[in-house]
Amino acid sequence: MIKVGIIGATGYAGAELVRLLLGHKEAEIVWYGSRSYVDQSYASIYQNMFQLVDATCMDDNMEELAAKADVIFTATPQGLCASFINERILSSTKVIDLSADFRLKDVAVYEEWYKIKHQAPQYLEEAVYGLCEINREKIKTARLIANPGCYPTCSILSIYPLAKEGLIDLSTVIIDAKSGTSGAGRGAKTDNLYCEVNENIKAYGVAGHRHTPEIEEQLGYASGEHVTLNFTPHLVPMNRGILVTAYASLKKNVTYEEVKAVYDKYYEKERFVRVLPENVCPQTRWVEGSNYVDVNFKIDPRTNRIIMMGAMDNLVKGAAGQAVQNMNLLFGLDEAEGLYQAPIFP
Amino acid sequence: MIKVGIIGATGYAGAELVRLLLGHKEAEIVWYGSRSYVDQSYASIYQNMFQLVDATCMDDNMEELAAKADVIFTATPQGLCASFINERILSSTKVIDLSADFRLKDVAVYEEWYKIKHQAPQYLEEAVYGLCEINREKIKTARLIANPGCYPTCSILSIYPLAKEGLIDLSTVIIDAKSGTSGAGRGAKTDNLYCEVNENIKAYGVAGHRHTPEIEEQLGYASGEHVTLNFTPHLVPMNRGILVTAYASLKKNVTYEEVKAVYDKYYEKERFVRVLPENVCPQTRWVEGSNYVDVNFKIDPRTNRIIMMGAMDNLVKGAAGQAVQNMNLLFGLDEAEGLYQAPIFP
Amino acid sequence: MIKVGIIGATGYAGAELVRLLLGHKEAEIVWYGSRSYVDQSYASIYQNMFQLVDATCMDDNMEELAAKADVIFTATPQGLCASFINERILSSTKVIDLSADFRLKDVAVYEEWYKIKHQAPQYLEEAVYGLCEINREKIKTARLIANPGCYPTCSILSIYPLAKEGLIDLSTVIIDAKSGTSGAGRGAKTDNLYCEVNENIKAYGVAGHRHTPEIEEQLGYASGEHVTLNFTPHLVPMNRGILVTAYASLKKNVTYEEVKAVYDKYYEKERFVRVLPENVCPQTRWVEGSNYVDVNFKIDPRTNRIIMMGAMDNLVKGAAGQAVQNMNLLFGLDEAEGLYQAPIFP
Amino acid sequence: MIKVGIIGATGYAGAELVRLLLGHKEAEIVWYGSRSYVDQSYASIYQNMFQLVDATCMDDNMEELAAKADVIFTATPQGLCASFINERILSSTKVIDLSADFRLKDVAVYEEWYKIKHQAPQYLEEAVYGLCEINREKIKTARLIANPGCYPTCSILSIYPLAKEGLIDLSTVIIDAKSGTSGAGRGAKTDNLYCEVNENIKAYGVAGHRHTPEIEEQLGYASGEHVTLNFTPHLVPMNRGILVTAYASLKKNVTYEEVKAVYDKYYEKERFVRVLPENVCPQTRWVEGSNYVDVNFKIDPRTNRIIMMGAMDNLVKGAAGQAVQNMNLLFGLDEAEGLYQAPIFP
Repeated sequence: MIKVGIIGATGYAGAELVRLLLGHKEAEIVWYGSRSYVDQSYASIYQNMFQLVDATCMDDNMEELAAKADVIFTATPQGLCASFINERILSSTKVIDLSADFRLKDVAVYEEWYKIKHQAPQYLEEAVYGLCEINREKIKTARLIANPGCYPTCSILSIYPLAKEGLIDLSTVIIDAKSGTSGAGRGAKTDNLYCEVNENIKAYGVAGHRHTPEIEEQLGYASGEHVTLNFTPHLVPMNRGILVTAYASLKKNVTYEEVKAVYDKYYEKERFVRVLPENVCPQTRWVEGSNYVDVNFKIDPRTNRIIMMGAMDNLVKGAAGQAVQNMNLLFGLDEAEGLYQAPIFP
Repeated sequence: MIKVGIIGATGYAGAELVRLLLGHKEAEIVWYGSRSYVDQSYASIYQNMFQLVDATCMDDNMEELAAKADVIFTATPQGLCASFINERILSSTKVIDLSADFRLKDVAVYEEWYKIKHQAPQYLEEAVYGLCEINREKIKTARLIANPGCYPTCSILSIYPLAKEGLIDLSTVIIDAKSGTSGAGRGAKTDNLYCEVNENIKAYGVAGHRHTPEIEEQLGYASGEHVTLNFTPHLVPMNRGILVTAYASLKKNVTYEEVKAVYDKYYEKERFVRVLPENVCPQTRWVEGSNYVDVNFKIDPRTNRIIMMGAMDNLVKGAAGQAVQNMNLLFGLDEAEGLYQAPIFP
Repeated sequence: MIKVGIIGATGYAGAELVRLLLGHKEAEIVWYGSRSYVDQSYASIYQNMFQLVDATCMDDNMEELAAKADVIFTATPQGLCASFINERILSSTKVIDLSADFRLKDVAVYEEWYKIKHQAPQYLEEAVYGLCEINREKIKTARLIANPGCYPTCSILSIYPLAKEGLIDLSTVIIDAKSGTSGAGRGAKTDNLYCEVNENIKAYGVAGHRHTPEIEEQLGYASGEHVTLNFTPHLVPMNRGILVTAYASLKKNVTYEEVKAVYDKYYEKERFVRVLPENVCPQTRWVEGSNYVDVNFKIDPRTNRIIMMGAMDNLVKGAAGQAVQNMNLLFGLDEAEGLYQAPIFP
Repeated sequence: MIKVGIIGATGYAGAELVRLLLGHKEAEIVWYGSRSYVDQSYASIYQNMFQLVDATCMDDNMEELAAKADVIFTATPQGLCASFINERILSSTKVIDLSADFRLKDVAVYEEWYKIKHQAPQYLEEAVYGLCEINREKIKTARLIANPGCYPTCSILSIYPLAKEGLIDLSTVIIDAKSGTSGAGRGAKTDNLYCEVNENIKAYGVAGHRHTPEIEEQLGYASGEHVTLNFTPHLVPMNRGILVTAYASLKKNVTYEEVKAVYDKYYEKERFVRVLPENVCPQTRWVEGSNYVDVNFKIDPRTNRIIMMGAMDNLVKGAAGQAVQNMNLLFGLDEAEGLYQAPIFP
């Protein structure tokens, strides 16, 4: 059994890791780290785990944990993983960081968008961007995985085949994204109160959201071009789910079948990316609770644009599920172990 | 592998059976019956099942199905199972009926509350009421299981230990229940439209809901008394979940510890009934997607009443999950097979 | 124009006062008190008021405010109004307190249930309980109004006619209440986050909620008896609305018509209490945004109980609307001024 | 008093007309037309109107109605108004059509996008597009008003000043819109059931929604160019509200102040369009229940694009409120009569 430690186990992403790992045949959680709830019963915080988890919350002593665990998930605010990580830790355990600390290769870009000084830039080059469908082979041998952001996962997977194959003009890409509220975390802020979110939709971080450079960097690798794009996230009154609606101009005339073939080229063998039938739009309800990303597209001959769409569960494929998928790759397991759940509806 | 047929596979309870059985190691679905969608791809109706279910909807020919299946689930409107069932079917397959047709032993009570003529009263005596925690042994050898109603499951399990042990005055029982909207089914009715349900709560079926005699009959068996009670359901703007708040006068002075011991006596070894710690109220969010029923109670010394509370997922323990649990008992399997999912939150 | 000061103008009840008073022909707000947001533009907190309210938040200096205002609304946490109030204030202005400080006549009961020491018990006798339909005449000449709690308003109005006329056994009263989340206030607490409330229902304060003695006291006045009852509130995933489902045993056989006549006796001429047609259940959606309370009842001959139901908007009739209604009475205005809005649906 | 007839009074837009007109000082409703509910009490369908509306539903005999009413609102499916309208009606009453029948000047475009034959193309030229802020003077003297669609109202008002002033490249316009579910109407369709909409977001009508040509036509008038754009609507789990996020490339370098001045030029004196302060994003909750449209913009120097945003209540400014605003203009009343309500929150 793989021994797993979680730092940040009482945030929503951490709790989703717990849920998924409880159903994983080859892993057991040995450390439920939660600075806010040290010494409290985990099941008293997440009562769904009553009689399922019999552990008490631990602190975030990553060095001590490294000695006990085969892999550590850090589901913590930006900056924390980078401030803890060191060679001793990395030489004794694998680290899968669900924060943004190791996603951007350029430390200057990180510091500009995140407004914090990076504490461990020496590991940026080594870290592997853990988008499994794209970096599968590199992930298998990594020590440090930068688990992708929720919006980037959905955005990149929706656009990747067309960027890679050069079908779209990357200077025209606009991503309009919509997320459920669990993406905002479990912090007690007025803006996230039920009555403030319910019966409302708003854009936020317009022209300035920190997931923008992450998407640009990855689409840059795919296309071999420097990419600058617009990314606008919106907050939707629902618990889970991200929907991406992305727009780009086509570089040449293409048919539905040609574009479909391009998506199939990259995703046909992928277990967790489903290219939907023609004219069927992705919807977040059809992936809830699962690790699937549903993608599709629509060509608009009137404007010569293509609309690319993707839907996924922000806590699963957008966070904990992808982290488990990365763990499976790191340890040579079936990539889908612990992730076999069908989406739950309604 | 147990071969499973589902009649009514495109209703919410039927779809939940599909979700659960996809994760069941010993069962495979051989018949997705849906009168409304015959010959349509199942995954075109429930798009969450895209690439997971590759079947086409069949009609509701129960005789033909009986020849192919080891067990048939009927997740259909009242009256349909009773109109189809016969000796040939029952001699070749097991039947688990999720409708109300075989829940009430007294045909006159059925016909009074359901306003339809019973088409197969000769099987009422044979049918076993499939509340696993109470009728486990009888279930194991049955041919025909009457899968309990959603409200009765939660109500009975919340009250049963105290009724059985004679701690409460059964003439004082009042059950105030609240359900998510999936309980109303997938029929296209104005009353169930999003804008009619959202931002609203209402009582319905006041002093006349059809689950009343079912609860009364079962609490009658538990207590050995004739029980008449008030049951009031309410519609809550959420997808899943039932919460029961039940009131009764105590027959004698009891302490928290004494009542706790009574609950533990019946449920301590039960996998799917969780008696919560003192002062922790059941909440539907902590059981969503799982087969658990969370119960607890509070003694009010000011009024000498006890408030009994229960929460469960109406589609799982209240319908499909309990049906699978019954199937597991019928076939001698691990009672929890296919039901290991931890509750999903948020 | 009546000059109005609000202390606590940035809570949900305070904001609702602002909304209602903006449409009031005889009143103008001269003081938007909000300790948390002093010197900030009110419309920057409640952006719905952009271009409608051009004021800046003030502190809670009630003495200074008393010199400027004809009436002060205190929409503040328990204890604050009692700690500020004094003879100078009361001799120069009217005070309508939306907190619980002056609702209970017995200071010992207050201190037991609210766990704080009462700072101004000398005004308890003078204060008038501002349930307009019942205490209309007393309100007109009061200096200090104790605006009723949200649950008590809906509970008392649902039960009052039958308590007053002696039709029900008050020792059997059980009130099961359900509230939207705005009743929990705008404080940034984890329990009130969107993801914690959404897709969930729970009971809270079981056998111990502080509105219990308030309901008991008022039903005691109505019936001339000492009343002890069960009151259980539940949190519902919606913004506004309270639904009360109350149960009691009938003291004698009565017909629908007889009970209807009793409700009509008390409410037929009331503008804001609507006795619904037979078999029509109150629903919160039908009163949202308005000052109406919809009530109805159902006799259950099987159990000899009556189920009494009421629905209202907790922020209007349950808080700000009733406060405005009280103000109108205090100043000899049309009781409905500022409260003419029809309920908004959907 | 202006005598008002409503055809389609039991749809959501029709019911909102009733709500608004009940508070209108110069109008009274004389005809509640509803083919589905003829002879039923209006308040039995919309119970919020109990004791407020004492009328019975009438049929849709527009000729008979024209003899009784000074103005007729048709809040009906596409095609119905065009099939009824004639010279007798228009010579005796004003008609404000909330359907799309007279919004597009080119009958071929109408028939292509709406897939129905237009029954009264002879009135297309005469009909005035009732976007009050833009066509105010023409509206005042019209006989037939084409009340704008919900999405077009919000989209056009968000973009109009920049299109009119030539600041944006109209060939780059992309509109990503999000709507609450009341926009889908009150028809009993599976897709609009609570459990299908709740906890979900989806795009629909991608590259083919019928509001596209309406937006294109109006932005064409504003800019003097032929406009072809992308418009993608999304369904959001909330009752009311539309949010528009629109993207376009800037034709030249502009500062925040310059663009702000352009918006102010067109909207500073408008009662119902609020240009928000810098960096404040429109949110649907801040306009709910009111006739306001909140707009704002953000310049992205990285991509040289501008993001234009608008929020409004789809049933008020997007339907019934704008229709009342048009009526006020037609009859020379205060343009805001009946529309003074502040937005309701939460």
